[in-house]
Amino acid sequence: MEPKRPKDSLTIMTEMVMPNDTNPIGNLMGGNLMKWMDVASGICARRHSNAVCVTASVDSVSFSNPIKVGDAVTLVAKVTRAFNTSMEVHIQVHTENATATEKVESNEAFFTFVALDRYLKPTKVPELTPETDKEKELFDAAKRRRELRLILAGRMAPDQSPELKALFK
Amino acid sequence: MEPKRPKDSLTIMTEMVMPNDTNPIGNLMGGNLMKWMDVASGICARRHSNAVCVTASVDSVSFSNPIKVGDAVTLVAKVTRAFNTSMEVHIQVHTENATATEKVESNEAFFTFVALDRYLKPTKVPELTPETDKEKELFDAAKRRRELRLILAGRMAPDQSPELKALFK
Amino acid sequence: MEPKRPKDSLTIMTEMVMPNDTNPIGNLMGGNLMKWMDVASGICARRHSNAVCVTASVDSVSFSNPIKVGDAVTLVAKVTRAFNTSMEVHIQVHTENATATEKVESNEAFFTFVALDRYLKPTKVPELTPETDKEKELFDAAKRRRELRLILAGRMAPDQSPELKALFK
Amino acid sequence: MEPKRPKDSLTIMTEMVMPNDTNPIGNLMGGNLMKWMDVASGICARRHSNAVCVTASVDSVSFSNPIKVGDAVTLVAKVTRAFNTSMEVHIQVHTENATATEKVESNEAFFTFVALDRYLKPTKVPELTPETDKEKELFDAAKRRRELRLILAGRMAPDQSPELKALFK
Amino acid sequence: MEPKRPKDSLTIMTEMVMPNDTNPIGNLMGGNLMKWMDVASGICARRHSNAVCVTASVDSVSFSNPIKVGDAVTLVAKVTRAFNTSMEVHIQVHTENATATEKVESNEAFFTFVALDRYLKPTKVPELTPETDKEKELFDAAKRRRELRLILAGRMAPDQSPELKALFK
Amino acid sequence: MEPKRPKDSLTIMTEMVMPNDTNPIGNLMGGNLMKWMDVASGICARRHSNAVCVTASVDSVSFSNPIKVGDAVTLVAKVTRAFNTSMEVHIQVHTENATATEKVESNEAFFTFVALDRYLKPTKVPELTPETDKEKELFDAAKRRRELRLILAGRMAPDQSPELKALFK
Repeated sequence: MEPKRPKDSLTIMTEMVMPNDTNPIGNLMGGNLMKWMDVASGICARRHSNAVCVTASVDSVSFSNPIKVGDAVTLVAKVTRAFNTSMEVHIQVHTENATATEKVESNEAFFTFVALDRYLKPTKVPELTPETDKEKELFDAAKRRRELRLILAGRMAPDQSPELKALFK
Repeated sequence: MEPKRPKDSLTIMTEMVMPNDTNPIGNLMGGNLMKWMDVASGICARRHSNAVCVTASVDSVSFSNPIKVGDAVTLVAKVTRAFNTSMEVHIQVHTENATATEKVESNEAFFTFVALDRYLKPTKVPELTPETDKEKELFDAAKRRRELRLILAGRMAPDQSPELKALFK
Repeated sequence: MEPKRPKDSLTIMTEMVMPNDTNPIGNLMGGNLMKWMDVASGICARRHSNAVCVTASVDSVSFSNPIKVGDAVTLVAKVTRAFNTSMEVHIQVHTENATATEKVESNEAFFTFVALDRYLKPTKVPELTPETDKEKELFDAAKRRRELRLILAGRMAPDQSPELKALFK
Repeated sequence: MEPKRPKDSLTIMTEMVMPNDTNPIGNLMGGNLMKWMDVASGICARRHSNAVCVTASVDSVSFSNPIKVGDAVTLVAKVTRAFNTSMEVHIQVHTENATATEKVESNEAFFTFVALDRYLKPTKVPELTPETDKEKELFDAAKRRRELRLILAGRMAPDQSPELKALFK
Repeated sequence: MEPKRPKDSLTIMTEMVMPNDTNPIGNLMGGNLMKWMDVASGICARRHSNAVCVTASVDSVSFSNPIKVGDAVTLVAKVTRAFNTSMEVHIQVHTENATATEKVESNEAFFTFVALDRYLKPTKVPELTPETDKEKELFDAAKRRRELRLILAGRMAPDQSPELKALFK
Repeated sequence: MEPKRPKDSLTIMTEMVMPNDTNPIGNLMGGNLMKWMDVASGICARRHSNAVCVTASVDSVSFSNPIKVGDAVTLVAKVTRAFNTSMEVHIQVHTENATATEKVESNEAFFTFVALDRYLKPTKVPELTPETDKEKELFDAAKRRRELRLILAGRMAPDQSPELKALFK
C-alpha cells in the first residue's frame, strides 16, 4: 500500500446558506455546518482510503463568526494523518458574503473516520506523507489530538500520554 | 432572576431515520445526528434562558453503534450548568429499531449555547440548580469540561486549571 | 400478549418551525403539522405494538392559532385504545415562541395505525390499559370515534351506533 | 363579486414519490400525502378567492392502497362550495406506478381554507356555482360536512343539524 | 404498438415557491425550476412510453421574468414527438402570485428522455400523433431541434441538416 | 474595473448523491445535477462580478453516464468570458464511486448569469483575461455560443452570425 499525500484526497465543497439552514436570527445553525463538514471530510477520507468510510468521532468545535443566509461557505478538507484503519481529517471553513466582497476564515474542525471493507469490518488505510510545513505541523499534532480523544472517550489513562502530561506541568 | 432546575427546560426530540439521512451503507451519518443534537439542545437552552440562543461550541463526540434507516432516535437534552451568559447542555441519544424491540443508548454530547438579547448581545441567564444525583454529577463536571474547552480554544493556559492538571499527574 | 399502559409508548417530538415549513405569511402550513403528527404517532404506535405500523386514517383536525417561523412545536403522542390489529393515537400539540416565553396548547388530533407482521399482513396488538382519568376518558371516547370513522368511511350504518345515535336525539 | 365555477380554480399537482417520503416498508407516509394535499388545495383556494388562504380544517382521511416509491401521485383539487369567508376544497388522488401501466384512484379528502385580506383578517370570497352533476352533488353535501365539522369542533349542537339528525334516525 | 396523442400523457404539476427554492434576492433559482421541469417531463415521458425513462438532454433555457417566493408555478408537459426509443417533451411554465391575481407565461423548455426496458436498455416507444395546430407545429419543429441537439453534441455534421443549413443562408 | 482571471473566481463544489436525488432506478436525476450546476456557477459568477447574480440562461446539456447513489460529484466552475453585464460560466462535472476507485468526467455545461446592483438593475462586470490554452479556447468559443443563444432566443437573426453561418456552409 503506497503512502498518499494530503493533496491526493483534497476535497473542496462550496455551499450557499439557504433560509432553512438558519436559526430565527438568520445565522447558519452550528449543526448544519457540522453536517456539511461531515460530508466533505467523509468524501476526503474515502479518497484517501479507497474504501467506504464512517465517522468515528468529531473533535470539539467552536463557533465564533455568524454566517448569514446567502453567504457562500467553502470547506477545504485534508487528511492530516492515517492510523492503521482510521484517518484524521482537518476541515477549514471559509465564508464570503452574497457579493463575495467580504471573506472570513470562520471555523476549523477535525473529524476522524474509519475505513470499512466490503464486510463492513475496519480495513487498513495507506499512510499519509505530509508535504507542506502546515501539513507537517498538523501531522505531528494529530498524535496529540488522538491521545486526547482516547482520554476523553475513557479509552486511555491521562498519564499514558507524555505529551499531554507535559502540557499540564 | 430565579434559578431553574434541569427539568424546567428538559427537551425531548424523536426523529425517524429517513433514507436521505444515511450514508451509502445505510447508517445515519454522524453529521446528521449532530444537526439534530443542535436543534434539540438549542430549544433546551432557550427554554432555560428565555432568550434566543446560538451555538457557541460542541464538545468532542464519538460514534460507536451504527443507527439504521427506519430506526427511531430519541434525544433527551438537559441544561447541566449555567455560566453567566452561556449554558452547557447534555444530550443523551437513545435508539430503537423499526419494531421498537431493540433499544440502545447510543451517544451523548455536550453543546454550549450563548443567550442573546434583542440587540444580539450576550445576556445573563438564570443559574441552574441540579436535583438528582446524575444532574449534580454533570453540574460538577461541567466546570472541568468548560476549562478543557477554554484550553482547547487557546483561551486559557493549561496550568490555570487545577482540576485538569490533577488528572495528568 | 401483555396489556400495555399509555406511558409505555409515550412519544415526544420537538421541532423548530423553519422557513420552508411556512406559507407566504410566515405561518406553519397545516399539512406540515400533519406530517409531524404522522411521524410522532407512528413511532408511538410501533412502540405499543412492537411491529411496523402504517397510517390507516386521520380524524378531522382544525387549525386555530397560527404557529410562526422560529417557534418550537412539541407533539405528545399516546395510544388511547387498541382494537385487535389497530391502535388509535392521540397527539397533543404545544407551541412556544422563539424565546420560550409564550406557550400555547394549539392542536390535537387522532391518528389510527394498523400493525403489520413481516409479511405485511395486519397482526394483533396488545390491549391498552389506561391509568389516569384523562387516559380513561380518551379510552372510553375512542369507541365512539371509531364508530364515527366507520360511518364516515361508509363501512358502518349510522343507526348501528347507539352512542352516536343518542348524540343526535 | 362574481360567482366562480369549480373549473376556474381547478388545480392539478403531480409528484413523484421519493425515498424520503416513504416509511421503512417503502410506502408513502400518510402525513406526506396530507402535506401535498394541503399545498394543492391551498393553491386552489387562493385561485378561487384571489386572496392569501390558510388551512382551517381537514376532514377525516383514510388510507387504503399503499403508494410505493417511484409512483407518480396526481392530486386534483376543486372548490366544492364557498361559505362567506371560507371554502371547502375536494382533493382526489390518483396514483400510477413507475411505468404508468397501473393506475388507481387511491384517496380523497376535504380541506377547508379561510381567505385573508392584507391585514390578515378573514375576507369575503366569491360564491361557487357548480356545473357538472358530480360538482352539484359535492356542493349539496358540503353543507352537511360543514355541520359535522362544527359539531366535531364543539361549535354546534348536534341537534341543530336536521340533516345529520336524520342520518341517525 | 398503437400511436398516442399528446393528451394521453399530458402532465400538469403545480408547486408553491418556498424560501429554500430562492436566491438571496427572493427569486426562484433557475436550477430549481429545471429540477421541477425534469420531474414533470419525466412523468410525461413514462406516461407516453409505459416504461422507466431517463433524461437524455435538455435544450437551452432562458430565464426572463423573476418568480417570487409564495408564487404558484404550474408546469404543463406534453410529448411533442417520439423518435424510436426517445421522446421530446415540451414544458410550458405559468406563474401566478400569492393571490392568483397576476398570471405570467414565464418559461418554456424541451427535455428529451430515453425509455428503458427492465434490463435498462433503450426500448421502442409508441409514435406520437399530434392533434391541435400547436401540437403539429411542435411536432414539425422537433426534427429541427433534434438535429441541432445532435450537432451541438458533436454527433452530426452541421451540413447534414438541410433545414438548419437553410436557416443560416 | 480591473480584469480578472478565471482562477480568481474558480468554484469547486462536491456533493454526495443521496437517495432522494435519484430516480426509481437509482441514478441521479438530470434536474438535480442542473440544480447543483446552478448553485456552483452562480457562486462563481458572483466571485467574478462582486455582485448578486441571477441565472439568465442555460445552454443545452446532455446526460450520458449514469451517476449512482453514494457517488461523489465534483463540479468545477470557471468564468469563460464576460460580456458587459453578463458572464458565461463553464461547469465540468467529475464523478467517482463510493470507494473513489472509479472516476469519470461525466458532464459539462454553460450557464450565463447577469450581475445586479443594489436596485436589482444589471451592472457592469470586470472583463475576463484567460490564461491557459483551455481557457483561451473557451473564451474564443464563448462568442459563438452567445450568438447561438441569441438566435435560439429569437433575439438575433441567424445570418447576423458570420461564424455560425460558416459552420453550416
